[in-house]
Amino acid sequence: MHLLALGGSDAGISAALRARELDPSVEVSVMLADEYPNFSICGIPYLVAGEVADWRHLAHRHREQIEGLGIALLSSTTARSIDVAAHVVIATDADGFERAVPYDRLVVATGAVPVRPPIAGLDELGPRDGVHLLHTMDDARAVLSTLEERSPSRVVVVGAGYIGLEMAEALTARGVAVSVLEALPRVLATLDAELGDVVAAELADHGVEVLTSTVVTAIERDGAGLVVQARRHERDGEPLAVEVAAGMVLVVTGVAPDVALARDAGATLGPRGAIRVDRGMATGLPDVWAAGDCVVTHHALLGETYLPLGTTAHKQGRLAGENAIGGERAFAGSVGTQVVRVFGLVAARTGVRDDEARAAGLHPRTVATVADDHKAYYPGATPVRVRLTGERSTGRLLGVQMVGAVASAVHKRVDTAATAIFSGLAVDQVGDLDLSYTPPLGSPWDVLQVAAQNWHAFPADSNHDPR
Amino acid sequence: MHLLALGGSDAGISAALRARELDPSVEVSVMLADEYPNFSICGIPYLVAGEVADWRHLAHRHREQIEGLGIALLSSTTARSIDVAAHVVIATDADGFERAVPYDRLVVATGAVPVRPPIAGLDELGPRDGVHLLHTMDDARAVLSTLEERSPSRVVVVGAGYIGLEMAEALTARGVAVSVLEALPRVLATLDAELGDVVAAELADHGVEVLTSTVVTAIERDGAGLVVQARRHERDGEPLAVEVAAGMVLVVTGVAPDVALARDAGATLGPRGAIRVDRGMATGLPDVWAAGDCVVTHHALLGETYLPLGTTAHKQGRLAGENAIGGERAFAGSVGTQVVRVFGLVAARTGVRDDEARAAGLHPRTVATVADDHKAYYPGATPVRVRLTGERSTGRLLGVQMVGAVASAVHKRVDTAATAIFSGLAVDQVGDLDLSYTPPLGSPWDVLQVAAQNWHAFPADSNHDPR
Repeated sequence: MHLLALGGSDAGISAALRARELDPSVEVSVMLADEYPNFSICGIPYLVAGEVADWRHLAHRHREQIEGLGIALLSSTTARSIDVAAHVVIATDADGFERAVPYDRLVVATGAVPVRPPIAGLDELGPRDGVHLLHTMDDARAVLSTLEERSPSRVVVVGAGYIGLEMAEALTARGVAVSVLEALPRVLATLDAELGDVVAAELADHGVEVLTSTVVTAIERDGAGLVVQARRHERDGEPLAVEVAAGMVLVVTGVAPDVALARDAGATLGPRGAIRVDRGMATGLPDVWAAGDCVVTHHALLGETYLPLGTTAHKQGRLAGENAIGGERAFAGSVGTQVVRVFGLVAARTGVRDDEARAAGLHPRTVATVADDHKAYYPGATPVRVRLTGERSTGRLLGVQMVGAVASAVHKRVDTAATAIFSGLAVDQVGDLDLSYTPPLGSPWDVLQVAAQNWHAFPADSNHDPR
Repeated sequence: MHLLALGGSDAGISAALRARELDPSVEVSVMLADEYPNFSICGIPYLVAGEVADWRHLAHRHREQIEGLGIALLSSTTARSIDVAAHVVIATDADGFERAVPYDRLVVATGAVPVRPPIAGLDELGPRDGVHLLHTMDDARAVLSTLEERSPSRVVVVGAGYIGLEMAEALTARGVAVSVLEALPRVLATLDAELGDVVAAELADHGVEVLTSTVVTAIERDGAGLVVQARRHERDGEPLAVEVAAGMVLVVTGVAPDVALARDAGATLGPRGAIRVDRGMATGLPDVWAAGDCVVTHHALLGETYLPLGTTAHKQGRLAGENAIGGERAFAGSVGTQVVRVFGLVAARTGVRDDEARAAGLHPRTVATVADDHKAYYPGATPVRVRLTGERSTGRLLGVQMVGAVASAVHKRVDTAATAIFSGLAVDQVGDLDLSYTPPLGSPWDVLQVAAQNWHAFPADSNHDPR
């Protein structure tokens, strides 16, 4: 049996590894368009920051390790079409030749492509002009080249999502001034405004200029540099024309699933145009599974959604690899856990926010809490800000958002909430959890438990903030 | 209605606060033998270390705050007996007068007393000689006096449990040499030997002398100082006589429940002689509830046990306060989550270990894992050592032990495991959990998930260590 994975990132490699692990008799190949199998694209900001010295370090596993596990890597090979009936993938190889690669089982793990917002000049200008999208290792290396060759004194980052903010920090670490332009009224729109504002203040504290409600309309060359044109929408009155001069522009406004191959082969598409898969990662096409940023995600609270995350891609890929060779495991469901570090802060969330729950037909209530990460008498205690969402009727825990200092372990505190949501616990039961306590690292009632108790204590008030 | 709590520490104060919170019409009093209501005795080591500047800071709440919530504090008042039929507590007040304090509902929260091991001289020598037990705030202040007045160059700590190790660190921070003498063959016997050894190495790295398998037999005065006599049991041969000279000796070999009052009033006792309570914290005596270090703990995996912990005392106290005034809440069950920081390491556990599971009639299997706390390419990654125990037949998660650097957030990673055990998850489901990931703070598969996957990958080997 020959299992072929299309895509050499998290999902494709996870599928290949799992199939080999379960059945060493299966022949496994991974086809990828570039020369970066199993690279951590989440690590790109730290490469740009200079915290990771060499791009090669971003490989989860090196090519030799993967091949050593008996996986054939067909790199610099671009899949052109899938002939489902013939069980063949048509591809263009490194030398430009067309190849027909037969398979018995196929895992489509084509990932996502960066969104290109409607900005005049974006299609004409490119890395040579200092204008970059950022998604692949090639993109990352192009950004590094621009930084080295043009030594920009200011960079405009378009988009204040996870990657935009991580890149703002990375560039600041390199001594480059950064302006972040965001079309939405706030940064990190995956969090409630109250918490996004805390992150915005952290950016400002580190000298990052943040312009929200600012829609970029054009990027233009201006001598050796660039000018970004935008419109800033104030609460009242006409939008304000904004012009920012920069040596480099980075456009990071999100991703869309890369589904052309699967769609053309007859796959059904779901939310946001992602490939529809069942919980076993089957596409419905004979012998074709799919996983990662190109597929829909089954969310424990929201059902079918699109939520491209590295953690999910690893899980889905592993499942696809297992099921493609005969397994019968089902994806247990995402709860949408996400985390980002922005300078000294960590912002994390799991489950759904109030507005998301409402949009899904639920009846949520959200209560805000601020509590110290550890006993105040021990030096270094810092506030953790929590917004906890529960279901009014059932008391079920629906979501938790947290922002706190790096040392406050917000990234792992949110995992407790994620586990509680995964397990279907009620808000009330969060208070019953037996969580760890020692004065330098916690409190007898964990921050999350204080938030759960406040949720019950303030039943009539949907946005109580104790501070 | 008058609710009286006997004991002014975590359980007693929690009961009082909860009753007042739920029904401000209830009259609530707390009787305590000293002048330290609601003090964090877990914070004593940090006071001794000098990290907490003033003993007053160790109050969770100050007297004025508690009284401001309408709770009467009967301090320096020692309860002598409970007349259950008459609903009266007989006590000796601060002036030495006997008082009869009537109640309608009683919460016994008398806590625990330090164990006095059979050491010759321990009963004769005391704080004036530099020989200390350590459990109350008065004990802590006596230790501080000895340190200030005698300026010992070496302190012997008898007992290598949580408090013993925290005190070893505290004294080291003060520039005092420390010898820890432990009767068991290893430090921190609540962890498996493999992890206890890592903690022992950390102690040695910080200059703490650790003598295990060493039974202290006598403490003697020697001029202005003290000499500790002990026998060290080597694997083979006769025990070795050991003699350590010290300016101060600290005996911290555990606690026993303080049950005299309740027992004499007719309460039933359970494991380790602790007061038997049902899940609602009722003692069975009319209108008498009990909570905290003096009662048995209902453990989700082990049933009725004795496990005195601050977190549990808070939960039990809160329940006792609620139920004493008419509530009907049940204690959801402890899973035995514990954590300690020892210099740069954090050691944590939840659930049961292999030997504990076996003793409880379960059929466990334990697998060891070492994994980095975050992606190795990002600077500062450190190993987290995990021992994961699951049930052979059902695959249920039974326990997790972890040791790692402070920054690795082991203290909150163990909470994820605690939540999983609380929720009855299988080891397999731990791999399905949607946990957070960003390269500076984690990995796409969390350490706990790698441990869960290893547990499945090594079914025949009860102690596989991948490193």
